[in-house]
Amino acid sequence: MQKLQIEKLAIIGVGLMGGSIALSLKKKGYVGEVTGVGRGIENLKKALDLGIIDKYTLNLEDGVRDADVVVVAIPVGSIVELIAKSQGYMKDGAIITDVGSVKGEVVKGVEKIIDKRLDFVGGHPIAGTEESGAGAAFPTLYEGSKCILTPSVDSREEAFLKIRDMWEATGAEVVVMGTEDHDKILAAISHLPHVIAYSLVNTVNGIDDFDKSILSYSAGGFRDFTRIASSSPEMWRDICSMNRDAIIDMIDRYMLELSNLRTLIEEDARSGMLDYFNRSKKARDSLL
Amino acid sequence: MQKLQIEKLAIIGVGLMGGSIALSLKKKGYVGEVTGVGRGIENLKKALDLGIIDKYTLNLEDGVRDADVVVVAIPVGSIVELIAKSQGYMKDGAIITDVGSVKGEVVKGVEKIIDKRLDFVGGHPIAGTEESGAGAAFPTLYEGSKCILTPSVDSREEAFLKIRDMWEATGAEVVVMGTEDHDKILAAISHLPHVIAYSLVNTVNGIDDFDKSILSYSAGGFRDFTRIASSSPEMWRDICSMNRDAIIDMIDRYMLELSNLRTLIEEDARSGMLDYFNRSKKARDSLL
Repeated sequence: MQKLQIEKLAIIGVGLMGGSIALSLKKKGYVGEVTGVGRGIENLKKALDLGIIDKYTLNLEDGVRDADVVVVAIPVGSIVELIAKSQGYMKDGAIITDVGSVKGEVVKGVEKIIDKRLDFVGGHPIAGTEESGAGAAFPTLYEGSKCILTPSVDSREEAFLKIRDMWEATGAEVVVMGTEDHDKILAAISHLPHVIAYSLVNTVNGIDDFDKSILSYSAGGFRDFTRIASSSPEMWRDICSMNRDAIIDMIDRYMLELSNLRTLIEEDARSGMLDYFNRSKKARDSLL
Repeated sequence: MQKLQIEKLAIIGVGLMGGSIALSLKKKGYVGEVTGVGRGIENLKKALDLGIIDKYTLNLEDGVRDADVVVVAIPVGSIVELIAKSQGYMKDGAIITDVGSVKGEVVKGVEKIIDKRLDFVGGHPIAGTEESGAGAAFPTLYEGSKCILTPSVDSREEAFLKIRDMWEATGAEVVVMGTEDHDKILAAISHLPHVIAYSLVNTVNGIDDFDKSILSYSAGGFRDFTRIASSSPEMWRDICSMNRDAIIDMIDRYMLELSNLRTLIEEDARSGMLDYFNRSKKARDSLL
C-alpha cells in the first residue's frame, strides 16, 4: 500500500474517467475520503454502491468545501464555467485539475478567472472506452496509458508535483507539455479521426442514387470503422469549437494527403499505390 | 438436411471466404465432394484436417476437371487470369463464380475470354473478418449477410439460379444488380473507408513537428479506427486499380462533405456543427 497522499478528494463528474481515477487511487490507499459531485442522483448512488466514492452531493458548495484536490471530469465545454462557479467555496491551497481533451482554451480560461489562493494543473489522460457513467469505471483504466499535464504558468511547483504523483499512482505515464503541443497532438490522433468518421457517414448516407439507402449494404467493417460517429454530438461540437485552429490545420494536412492518394489512383500508379499502402500499413502495424 | 444440389464443387483458394462456403454447404448436405485447389500445401492440408474439403490438389487441371461448380475465391486482381488459364480443363456446362469485391472489371474480363460451353456468374458476399486462411473459415460466416450477384448477359438463367440457390443455402440474402451499381456501393461502404484509413495513418505519421512520432501518443481509439490500414497493400492496390472510377467519385464526394464540415468548424457555427454531428450519429446508430 502507498502512503495516504490526498486526504480529501472531490470528483466532479463521476463517470468513466472520474470514477476510474477514484477507484484506482482508493485501491492503492492513495486517497482518504472521496466525495462525488454531480447532477444525476442515480449515477451518484451507483458510484457509492460500487465503492467508487464514499459520499456524494448534488451541491457544488458542499462537494468541494473540504477537498485538498478537486478533479473536474465533466464535458470539456463546461470546465471553465464550473471552476468559476465553485472555486469560491474551495479552501485555501486546494488544487484543481481536469481531464478535458482540449487544453489551450481550458487553461487560458481558468488562468483568467482563478483565485490566487488556489492552483490549477490542466491534465488529459489519453484513455477511455466507448462506455460512460460510473458503472463503466474500473481501477486499471489508466494503467500503461499516457497522461499529458499542461501546468499553468501561475501554478506552484508543489501543486504540479501533487497532480503528477496522483496520475502516476493510477499507473499512467505522465508527459508534460505546453497546451499548444497537446492540442495539436490530440487534433491528429483523436479529433481528426472523429471529424473523418462523421463526414464519412454523412457522405455515404447522402448518396441517393439507389432505391434504398446505401447504408443497408454495409456490413461489420463499415459499422466498426464508423463507430466513433456515434459519439456525443454536443461533446464533439464543443471540442471542434475549442480546438478549432489545430483541427483545421489537421484537416488541411489530411486533405492534402488524401489528394495525393487520389492522384495515384486516378493515374493508376500501381507502384505508387503499393508504396503508399505499405508505408501506411507499416506505421499502423507499429501500433500493435 | 437439404437435397444434394452440387455433386462436385471445386474451391480455388481455400481461405476465409472459400473455406466458409464449403463448410456451410457441407454441413447442410448441399454438396457432395469438395476439392480444394491452391498454391500453399500447408493451408490445403489444414483445410482437409478441418473437414472443409474432401481432397486437394496444387494442380489446376486436376482440381477443376470434374467440378459442376467452380468457386474462385482468390485475390480480385488474379481472377480473370485464373479463369482464362483453367477453363480449358473444365467439363461442359460447368458453372464458374467468384467472390471478388470489384465486379465491373472482373465480369468484363471474364466475358471476353470465357468458353461458350461454360457459364460465369459474378458474385460478392459482403461478409468477412480480419482473419485469413482456411483456419479462419466457419460455417456461419454468411448467415444474415448480403451476397450481391452480377450475372453476365451471356450466362444461362439456369446457371444463375444454381449460384443463387447455393448462396441462399449458406444463409446469405442474395441481391441481384448490375456491376456498376455493385462497384459504386462497394466504393462507398468499403473502398472509401480503406482509402480514408490509409491516408489518415500517413497524415499522422507524416507530422514531424515533435521529437518523437505523434503516433506514440495514440491510444486504443486510434488503433481501432485505423485497423483496416493494416490490410494487404497488394489487395488494395488491385481494388483501387480495378474500381478506379467509382473510388475517385466517392473520394470527390467525401472531400466535398469534409470541406463542408471544415467550413462549419472554421466559422465556429455551433448549431451547424451540432446538426452535422447529429445527422451522422443518427445514420450510424441506425446500423446497430
